[in-house]
Amino acid sequence: MDDRSTGRELPEAECWVRLRGEEFGRLGYHLVDEVHIVPLNYVVDGERIVLRTTPGSKLLGVEMSSDVAFEIDGQAGDRVWSVLARGQAHRLEGADARAADELPLPAWIETERYVNIAIQVTELTGREFLRRG
Amino acid sequence: MDDRSTGRELPEAECWVRLRGEEFGRLGYHLVDEVHIVPLNYVVDGERIVLRTTPGSKLLGVEMSSDVAFEIDGQAGDRVWSVLARGQAHRLEGADARAADELPLPAWIETERYVNIAIQVTELTGREFLRRG
Repeated sequence: MDDRSTGRELPEAECWVRLRGEEFGRLGYHLVDEVHIVPLNYVVDGERIVLRTTPGSKLLGVEMSSDVAFEIDGQAGDRVWSVLARGQAHRLEGADARAADELPLPAWIETERYVNIAIQVTELTGREFLRRG
Repeated sequence: MDDRSTGRELPEAECWVRLRGEEFGRLGYHLVDEVHIVPLNYVVDGERIVLRTTPGSKLLGVEMSSDVAFEIDGQAGDRVWSVLARGQAHRLEGADARAADELPLPAWIETERYVNIAIQVTELTGREFLRRG
């Protein structure tokens, strides 16, 4: 599809490039009948999105392997684009968590203690639109 | 709270100011065990967020009065902020829809046909952080 109303679908490879090129996105998750959206820093490690949250975060209430969504978007000139990853989130522990500690995950917000979370990406889609008006 | 790790909570009045000052945000909703995040334009009308979607959108599968979340965020200098609205979404019909047609809702993306959706905001929270590094 490539028309004015629906824009251009981004190929999956292009979505990965954009996902790897950013460091700030929004995690959507579902918890006890509520949808939550949390903006946070992330880093892509293989086909996983790794992010950190504080030990007291609601996010930790998410069941292991819960379906979550992660979104990034941006504007470049008259173009608006967004990429949406879908996958299962889980808390990293033990050696996995220690390996994640070494990832170049930016931290715009300083936290003394954190928990590493990984989203195993199972679906990655994106769109780009020509911004009107 | 006002420390380096958690930032500053924005008063609700300030959240409304920011919500009224932007025109692009992200809607999170839950549909058949999947969390969706969709970036879109919006306008604030009273205490409602009004947005439009295409007639074929998955968003229309959301039950009337479903709980949804709507997020905006931004950066200003070394500060990062985000505002999260929570509320019930419903499709506007009849006179309500016609009134919504008159709202100054920006449309970055051209669509020939659309459906007006309103989110009655029941909770509005925001945070601002000093961006580190």
